[in-house]
Amino acid sequence: MASYVWDFTHGTKDQKDLLGGKGANLAEMTRLGLPVPPGFTVTTEACRAFLADGREPDGLEEEIDEHLCALEARIGRRLGDVADPLLLSVRSGAKFSMPGMMETVLDIGLNDQTVVGLATQSGDERFAADSYRRLLQMFGTTVLGIDGAAFSDRMDAAADLDADRLREVVADFKAIIRERTGSEFPQDPREQLRQAIRAVFASWNTPRAVLYRRHERIPEDLGTAVNVQVMVFGNRGPTSGSGVCFTRDPATGEPGVYGDYLQNAQGEDVVAGIRNTVSLADLADLDRASYDELLLAMSVLEHHYADMCDIEFTIEDGTLWMLQTRVGKRTPAAAVQIAADLVAEEQIDPDEALRRVTGTQLAALMFPQFAPDLTRRAVATGLNASPGAAVGRVVLDSATAVEWAERGEAVILVRKETTPEDLAGMMAARGILTARGGKTSHAAVVARGMGRTCVCGAESVTIDLPGRRLRLADGSEVAEGDVISIDGTTGEVFLGEVPVSEPALVRRLEGEVVDDRLADAALGLLDRADLVRRLEVRANADTPDDARRARRLGAGGIGLCRTEHMFLGERRGLVERLIVAEDDAEREIALARLEPLQRQDFAEILEAMDGLPVTIRLIDPPLHEFLPDLTDLAVRVALEDERHEEDEHDHELLAAVRRLHEQNPMLGLRGVRLGIVVPGLFDMQATAIAEATADRIEAGGDPRPEVMVPLVASAGELALVRTQLEQAVAAVATRRGLDLAIPIGTMIELPRAAVTADRIAGVADFFSFGTNDLTQTTWGFSRDDVEAEFFTAYRDRGILPVSPFESIDVDGVGSLVQQAVRLGRGVRPDLHLGVCGEHGGDPDSIHFFDRIGLDYVSCSPYRVPVARWEAARARLAVRSV
Amino acid sequence: MASYVWDFTHGTKDQKDLLGGKGANLAEMTRLGLPVPPGFTVTTEACRAFLADGREPDGLEEEIDEHLCALEARIGRRLGDVADPLLLSVRSGAKFSMPGMMETVLDIGLNDQTVVGLATQSGDERFAADSYRRLLQMFGTTVLGIDGAAFSDRMDAAADLDADRLREVVADFKAIIRERTGSEFPQDPREQLRQAIRAVFASWNTPRAVLYRRHERIPEDLGTAVNVQVMVFGNRGPTSGSGVCFTRDPATGEPGVYGDYLQNAQGEDVVAGIRNTVSLADLADLDRASYDELLLAMSVLEHHYADMCDIEFTIEDGTLWMLQTRVGKRTPAAAVQIAADLVAEEQIDPDEALRRVTGTQLAALMFPQFAPDLTRRAVATGLNASPGAAVGRVVLDSATAVEWAERGEAVILVRKETTPEDLAGMMAARGILTARGGKTSHAAVVARGMGRTCVCGAESVTIDLPGRRLRLADGSEVAEGDVISIDGTTGEVFLGEVPVSEPALVRRLEGEVVDDRLADAALGLLDRADLVRRLEVRANADTPDDARRARRLGAGGIGLCRTEHMFLGERRGLVERLIVAEDDAEREIALARLEPLQRQDFAEILEAMDGLPVTIRLIDPPLHEFLPDLTDLAVRVALEDERHEEDEHDHELLAAVRRLHEQNPMLGLRGVRLGIVVPGLFDMQATAIAEATADRIEAGGDPRPEVMVPLVASAGELALVRTQLEQAVAAVATRRGLDLAIPIGTMIELPRAAVTADRIAGVADFFSFGTNDLTQTTWGFSRDDVEAEFFTAYRDRGILPVSPFESIDVDGVGSLVQQAVRLGRGVRPDLHLGVCGEHGGDPDSIHFFDRIGLDYVSCSPYRVPVARWEAARARLAVRSV
Repeated sequence: MASYVWDFTHGTKDQKDLLGGKGANLAEMTRLGLPVPPGFTVTTEACRAFLADGREPDGLEEEIDEHLCALEARIGRRLGDVADPLLLSVRSGAKFSMPGMMETVLDIGLNDQTVVGLATQSGDERFAADSYRRLLQMFGTTVLGIDGAAFSDRMDAAADLDADRLREVVADFKAIIRERTGSEFPQDPREQLRQAIRAVFASWNTPRAVLYRRHERIPEDLGTAVNVQVMVFGNRGPTSGSGVCFTRDPATGEPGVYGDYLQNAQGEDVVAGIRNTVSLADLADLDRASYDELLLAMSVLEHHYADMCDIEFTIEDGTLWMLQTRVGKRTPAAAVQIAADLVAEEQIDPDEALRRVTGTQLAALMFPQFAPDLTRRAVATGLNASPGAAVGRVVLDSATAVEWAERGEAVILVRKETTPEDLAGMMAARGILTARGGKTSHAAVVARGMGRTCVCGAESVTIDLPGRRLRLADGSEVAEGDVISIDGTTGEVFLGEVPVSEPALVRRLEGEVVDDRLADAALGLLDRADLVRRLEVRANADTPDDARRARRLGAGGIGLCRTEHMFLGERRGLVERLIVAEDDAEREIALARLEPLQRQDFAEILEAMDGLPVTIRLIDPPLHEFLPDLTDLAVRVALEDERHEEDEHDHELLAAVRRLHEQNPMLGLRGVRLGIVVPGLFDMQATAIAEATADRIEAGGDPRPEVMVPLVASAGELALVRTQLEQAVAAVATRRGLDLAIPIGTMIELPRAAVTADRIAGVADFFSFGTNDLTQTTWGFSRDDVEAEFFTAYRDRGILPVSPFESIDVDGVGSLVQQAVRLGRGVRPDLHLGVCGEHGGDPDSIHFFDRIGLDYVSCSPYRVPVARWEAARARLAVRSV
Repeated sequence: MASYVWDFTHGTKDQKDLLGGKGANLAEMTRLGLPVPPGFTVTTEACRAFLADGREPDGLEEEIDEHLCALEARIGRRLGDVADPLLLSVRSGAKFSMPGMMETVLDIGLNDQTVVGLATQSGDERFAADSYRRLLQMFGTTVLGIDGAAFSDRMDAAADLDADRLREVVADFKAIIRERTGSEFPQDPREQLRQAIRAVFASWNTPRAVLYRRHERIPEDLGTAVNVQVMVFGNRGPTSGSGVCFTRDPATGEPGVYGDYLQNAQGEDVVAGIRNTVSLADLADLDRASYDELLLAMSVLEHHYADMCDIEFTIEDGTLWMLQTRVGKRTPAAAVQIAADLVAEEQIDPDEALRRVTGTQLAALMFPQFAPDLTRRAVATGLNASPGAAVGRVVLDSATAVEWAERGEAVILVRKETTPEDLAGMMAARGILTARGGKTSHAAVVARGMGRTCVCGAESVTIDLPGRRLRLADGSEVAEGDVISIDGTTGEVFLGEVPVSEPALVRRLEGEVVDDRLADAALGLLDRADLVRRLEVRANADTPDDARRARRLGAGGIGLCRTEHMFLGERRGLVERLIVAEDDAEREIALARLEPLQRQDFAEILEAMDGLPVTIRLIDPPLHEFLPDLTDLAVRVALEDERHEEDEHDHELLAAVRRLHEQNPMLGLRGVRLGIVVPGLFDMQATAIAEATADRIEAGGDPRPEVMVPLVASAGELALVRTQLEQAVAAVATRRGLDLAIPIGTMIELPRAAVTADRIAGVADFFSFGTNDLTQTTWGFSRDDVEAEFFTAYRDRGILPVSPFESIDVDGVGSLVQQAVRLGRGVRPDLHLGVCGEHGGDPDSIHFFDRIGLDYVSCSPYRVPVARWEAARARLAVRSV
């Protein structure tokens, strides 16, 4: 049987599973010869046995006794010795850091007798009494479960008490324990230790710990280790103190030590921030020897861990003790800078640097940000739907946004919620603020796609459209035209202009020459990522501007060009006419007017992506998005009638909208169904694509369009449409005298397409997984309707750790994607496979797509660098398994 | 190499694949020694080769020549012999009958010379000329593709022409052929034969044949055989004639011969109905010898085929010739009667009887029907949404329907479309007529579930609700209270009362004592079906009445008891209050009032199904079904405001409806999601079920409830809810001092549930496949919105043969069901599996569910006998493979 207790002299930093993070690092420092107060670790295995059986496992107590005896022998002091008592700290330490979640008890070993011995030994009665007070308070709350207020209320008025007063507090604390538990505080130090260890074990399952783990996606069944360690005291006068330090700046990553020190204090006093700390440099003046020793230890640790370390230390009467170390947390900027610097210093190789920095951290460097200012107060808060920082004048509708933007104003579009009708306004605006909607509402999705800053669901904001103003929760008002600032990274809304900065990294990626160390670091590693990754990275781009930007940001093509987005603005009327057309003639007029417009769009996009693939999705508009809202229109018509202002056009439109109204537009006449039911629509698009391709070829270009059919559920649909499309392309090829080979593929975005992918592969040149829609149909819910309320409830109850719209649901949606890959490649081993849902830019999802063998991911242009980065990390993760 | 040509003396009736139906049966009759004009069959294989290569396969012509020589030798006449010409018929004959779809050419062998020989031989110049005229006409249209009108126009004024006039017609017909094709009619009889055979081959691919096969689900690649046979003539004077006969009555199935005879006529004259036929009995007077010979042949055939046969014959100058036989088509009633009688006569065994009668045929016997009347004219026609016949007064809303029905009136509820609000009215009505909606609209689905007659989507009917009247296409009006009759089997609507009869079978199934031979036949076979079948059959039933009816109709339990249907009528207000509740107190009041009502419902249903399982589905209402329509309410509020009649309640309600409005209610807050988000709802239902169970136990009953959780997508949801439900049940068990073991299972109605069924099986006692919703999400469309327009377009284009809502989509939805079965049983081999979608009552789907190993199907009560029947047929189909 493995041992339940490990002395610090035995473990290593790689044993976090067994010893917890703190225990493993204490052992590592001990092995390195750094000054660590001696002690031992009770393993997570013991904790798991305790939690399973509700009691300490057999043999644990004996093992603890043995290690305690050895410790006493080594130190030369004994627990409970009234003359010179050994005092112990008992601290939890799980594999993953759970700050503040779990329990600590210090000064174990003090009782009514030993406190006298401590006073004598230390020559400091106040110190001894205060230590006893601390033990009673921590033991009372942590081990005995007494409400902390019972103790802190008594202490409130007791700052800077002298020894006598502290002895009164001790008596009172013992009385509190007696009253609240019906038992005396245990005077036996062994009993104190036993109960403290047990309390740490049990703290694994406190509700707040469970909730924290759920939130942080830490497994439930790990358990915590318990570190039992000889106490050292930073509160024994001016030659003592405690501090926290980092081997590099955790905010910027710049080399050079960094930290805080507090004289005559224990570690928890530093963290509590009750008194002002001094900087680490000041320690050099206070205690040069300890300072030098600490700097040496820091250097040893950073080289040993080959990473920036976060260290807690205490100086007891001029002697330095290392209490904890771990790889330090850091800002995204610091993460990138440190990783790149460590490569330059040859401490790690570039692949290790990529392993250490997530794509999410890289992404954080790319958003415009407000300068930090603690005094700034938000006037409203919503969901941080699309990160970044934006400043502009409030505009309340899309037309105004476009108009003001055209005359050079920066505007923030504020809407109750957005619809595709708002698209022009959203493009014109610097940022979008909505009063309704979740993180995957139309506003949020489109804003992220465009890289626009967006705060959505700011429910305290009321929009008074007739009065052209916003009303805030405090009753104040913001008129249209007033300047506001919105922070898409935090969800905050501010009045007036807050200064914004565009990160150097983005300016460099966009081709600007900027001298910036951080950008150098990021771009160096991004170059390495491109060498490592297997996945191609394409972009979702619907306009020539987006296409050009995507290319600058490193996209290897366009994976999704949504043609319905080209039908907005002034062309919307044509589409409305197409949809409500009652005969072929009306329809053909509308189609004939759309074709040259589409052709021009395609030619510009193909030019921007010359030599690279451009996957054009045929039109997929939910009908309702191109028609006026039924309820609004019905109310207008009713009021017109009531006022005897009958409007014939409105009446006709209402009849058409009622006729075309769908109960569930998401499940309605869309995609390939529309192409089959509306004659000529897909032909017109195929003709426009073919003509644009011919135009580009004649201009000497290298256009590489691919046509993608949306919402296919059966091979029969695709076969039918494919024949039509091929005929349309062939007709153009003949007319222009050119050889036009345009691959035709399909979206796999319905469960039926996934499970019949073998048949579909027989008529498709490529598949592109539309994981947004696939998630909706696989789960049977629409993200517009239920995501916000629903996932909050689900996450709180532990059913789902994360929305399947944010990160792909591997077990459900992922299983269907895998089936489709297997079935499709079974029929056609060279089938080209990609993904163009929002998951294409999500780190965890990218790893999944890499693992199952897709050829590319496609994401919004601003996510392209992140996807390149994560695609490399995915390869490295596979290699290291 | 197999032969392309088979003499009639060689084939058998089992070679329909190769010889086609007609050829195989001609061979069979020849082998039985019946008088069949000699001939041979060109195989379907030759046809397939012709269609593939566009020319006759090598060796075919030689084989035909050989068989022709043998035929000439046997008959002693030669093709093209000017003195005594052999004449041939060339008829298509595919494996499956395609009446009127394909081609026939008679009198091959006539030309300008042989027509003289025929006249001499027959001693009938007129007959010879008319035969030549017929050849020219048939050859011209069928082989040469000339518009038939070219010939028939010329003939129109030419009834009863004499020989000279007919010779003029012949000359004109030859001229028509010359003009239209630029060539002369081929005088060479071999060339005539070659072209005729080729034309029959090619007729397989005419557009109308393709469309017909698509509609009838006949495979495209079978091809047709061609039968070449010596001509016999029924038109050679009063001692000749042609007839059609059946060995039993094809309308009723009663024993006794049945048929029509036409003197001095060819077979096509009988079918064309130009002259009046006489009954078969009259033939006895005309030609006793032929009559006796025919009756003998009929008896031989029926015993040989062990089934009712359909026969075509010709008498040529007193000699009987059998031209065709096949197992005869029959009405559903005849199918049942004949099958049962053949069992009684020991011609077939009961399993064979079941094989021969489909559940759809049995179902047709169960609907009330209008007496046939050719003079009756429909005033409107819609979709035949739920079969049967209903007569009653028009009512235009649910409340009126209930009120009038309570005072004893028969009513037909007429609505633009129905919503769950109409449920009480639908139950009160004899039939439902809607102006909008497809075969799976709310009205159609609910009506079928209740067994109510329903015609839906009668778009020519306009409902003038304020005027309390209907307006018909012809401008006439029907006032509320006027009597109409609707035929759910044909979709027709009639003014006034049409007499209706309730079938004896249903009255017997319902327990009435009725003396009826057909009912005896059906019930006898149904008993057999119960012995044969493996699948249990349960019913979907939401009320005690439905439950009792289901039990009488043979249900072995309730597979789906929808609790949301219990929330309608007067309780609807309570549910509305529950949904719009803004705090726990309001919600708890609503729940507390619902609980005793539910308990009473459950107790009555459990009593009706004492000893049998009752699967109760927890509430699954799309929210919008319990709230007023947003658009209607918004218009009302706007008008109230405009008129300064502000209504505070309406304003509040509108706010709530807007808040709860979902873009896609089908994908909204439903099922288990609602149970998780609305505290107390599922607990209330579980408590009501447990209390009702306890009530029944204390009353000495044997209640067997099962609780089913709807719309589960992940094991986590079910695990959470299961714990809640178990606690609620346990609390009742403790309170009542009873042991309540209530199985808890789930619907599998989302793709995600299917692909994660292994995990879900870990927390489910049973699965019930909700194939309606599973079809919607797997395909990504809502049947309410797109089924009608969509499937019509899809069927016309050959993409789908049948709506996946009517018969399960085996490749897509079926594949997910199979995955779930495999995954679920992999974890839990004893997992009980059923299906409760509408597919549970569909014959093809039942076969599928039997094959993949489900334990039961559940369907509407009136479909239970059909499902029992088809479950047996499914077993027999498996055994015979």
